[in-house]
Amino acid sequence: MHFTDKNKKLGILGGGQLGKMLLTETRRLDLKTKVLDPSKDAPSKIGCDEFVQGDLMDYDTVVAFGEDTDLLTIEIENVNLDALEYLESNGTQVQPPTHSLITIQNKAKQKLFYVDHNIPTVPFSRFAYTSEIKESLSNGGLKLPLVWKSASMGYDGKGVKIVREENDLTELPNVECIAEDLVKEKIELAIIVARNPSGDIVTYPVVEMEFHPEANQVEYVICPARIPDEVAARAREIGKDIVEELDHVGLMAVEMFLTPEGELLVNEVAPRPHNSGHLTIEACYTNQFDQHLRAILDLPLGSTKSKLPAIMVNLVGEEGYTGEAVYKNLEETMALEGVSPHIYGKRETRPFRKIGHITIVGQELPEVRKIAERVKDQVRVVSKT
Amino acid sequence: MHFTDKNKKLGILGGGQLGKMLLTETRRLDLKTKVLDPSKDAPSKIGCDEFVQGDLMDYDTVVAFGEDTDLLTIEIENVNLDALEYLESNGTQVQPPTHSLITIQNKAKQKLFYVDHNIPTVPFSRFAYTSEIKESLSNGGLKLPLVWKSASMGYDGKGVKIVREENDLTELPNVECIAEDLVKEKIELAIIVARNPSGDIVTYPVVEMEFHPEANQVEYVICPARIPDEVAARAREIGKDIVEELDHVGLMAVEMFLTPEGELLVNEVAPRPHNSGHLTIEACYTNQFDQHLRAILDLPLGSTKSKLPAIMVNLVGEEGYTGEAVYKNLEETMALEGVSPHIYGKRETRPFRKIGHITIVGQELPEVRKIAERVKDQVRVVSKT
Repeated sequence: MHFTDKNKKLGILGGGQLGKMLLTETRRLDLKTKVLDPSKDAPSKIGCDEFVQGDLMDYDTVVAFGEDTDLLTIEIENVNLDALEYLESNGTQVQPPTHSLITIQNKAKQKLFYVDHNIPTVPFSRFAYTSEIKESLSNGGLKLPLVWKSASMGYDGKGVKIVREENDLTELPNVECIAEDLVKEKIELAIIVARNPSGDIVTYPVVEMEFHPEANQVEYVICPARIPDEVAARAREIGKDIVEELDHVGLMAVEMFLTPEGELLVNEVAPRPHNSGHLTIEACYTNQFDQHLRAILDLPLGSTKSKLPAIMVNLVGEEGYTGEAVYKNLEETMALEGVSPHIYGKRETRPFRKIGHITIVGQELPEVRKIAERVKDQVRVVSKT
Repeated sequence: MHFTDKNKKLGILGGGQLGKMLLTETRRLDLKTKVLDPSKDAPSKIGCDEFVQGDLMDYDTVVAFGEDTDLLTIEIENVNLDALEYLESNGTQVQPPTHSLITIQNKAKQKLFYVDHNIPTVPFSRFAYTSEIKESLSNGGLKLPLVWKSASMGYDGKGVKIVREENDLTELPNVECIAEDLVKEKIELAIIVARNPSGDIVTYPVVEMEFHPEANQVEYVICPARIPDEVAARAREIGKDIVEELDHVGLMAVEMFLTPEGELLVNEVAPRPHNSGHLTIEACYTNQFDQHLRAILDLPLGSTKSKLPAIMVNLVGEEGYTGEAVYKNLEETMALEGVSPHIYGKRETRPFRKIGHITIVGQELPEVRKIAERVKDQVRVVSKT
């Protein structure tokens, strides 16, 4: 589909916050869009030309939706891939391509892909059922602690569990999974990579992620990461290798661990715009949503240069509150220099639910950090009653 | 209205490109919005919660629309002001306030306001009818050349005419007007100013405008303007004086002439986001649309600092083409560094019609200028047949 052709339609599977921010860019380029999401109150309901409520995992729903589009993309990887395969073989353009999503959607397949293509990753074993881990522990094949990951449908820290003692295994679902070595000391990095069908690739500056110790969620995303240039260059090369080997099109977010020995290990990837790239809206020449559109439409990729140092803070629901969201002290933080809030428009807050983010830009990272800490300390997402 | 209260609604009078870009920011803050525009294909039709087709100059239409909103703002100043006055006196918040729009909407009143408040402006005379200019010329009260401006409803270079000989007057409508001295040698500057109801004021970096010689339309907006710091500081003071003296709330764009003698003369103002501020989207800490929302919602105003030097190029319809717009070479220019196109989504192109703009950012202004010239040379907006 050519982006200025008013008779063509871009379909987006998923209408959450990523879809919503993608729609900002489709509006800027005046693209015709259609969104599928299971929630009738999806953040993307406003801003598209057409909204369809429906199940992203239902074959018939996705096929019917896709057949009425000229180019189909995703904002979430948990969609019915059989439907995408059918659509692709029947002439609908699907970007990222289905084969890339198939490799990524299942975490065991994803890990095997790294091994097959010499992409450095955390050592792991694959199991058909969680119960097999117990056996492997008892016969000495595995050692504790380990990181258990469900092979399918993990998102936002769910489907991941640090197993410190055998007992931790009992609450876990008995599904296909992987057991990874626990990398105790590490800096967590991420890099956004984009590739278009012509094969052009660009990589963004490497960012650093600081995690909330309990919720396994990102607290701060820091750009640029405070790492040596040589390490950043290696991270960018790994990102390039992944999209090239996958023959991927569109955005790819690559999360990595940097060990004290200077080793880079791929943790996992997401084949779409990503939380770690939100700060590109304010901080980079081309933001990640713009870049995703450029990539899937086979347009020239945009410059990934930084405009300014930046930090992103996730706005997540406070523990102990469920219901209609209320933002405490948000207004006060808007008085601080370089602060841009993004409110996703999810109806309900829940503990640790991402319902927005705040980006802070400035001339120097240490000043930006001070403001980010004040924002983090002040803003609270609670519920009405 | 408090911006995080989901039961409150922001009304926007006008749904053109300015309204469309304003909606990007209302989506980011998750504000509930309702838009009134005469065109059923208005660029703002998508992106608001509710769209109403109707005449902005019709009293009953504007009153009915406004009564269903909690805060009413504008994207165009040619709206029914009697309706706004009624709404304001009946409890609907109107920002900018009606009294400010009354002073600005009529250019004769606007000019008298400058004189009354010692705001430097181009010397002028006011006339009840254009025909009186002829008399004034014959009895020596006026001299040619002069600039004729219709007192009401000028927009985008319409309602303005350089009168070099008496004959030029014959095609002009016989309406209330002003006759201004023609300032031959000048640099054209603009500055965006914002004020909230608490009285806080911020001013943006001064920009420089280069005009198309025939169409009287801006070709390049350049930020920062290449003028001495002392002149920029004076321009910012004039901008502040205007919003303070008007008791204005929201954005105000102030266009000025800088004469060879270093004098600054206010040309005209617009009480809303403005073409000269579009580059703030990519180039400033807080863009003008975000700032307008902060101002009318009485939120803390955002930093107006530059992130990077920038130039904006208007995308206007090529002479000789009317009909469905086709963009030539737009894709090629997207390969150049720092280029962000904005396509407004107007259905038809016409000669000199603004149907989009392109912002270019970069580290140094001379490089940005080179890219802007290539963009200007390459992109053509023509029609399908």
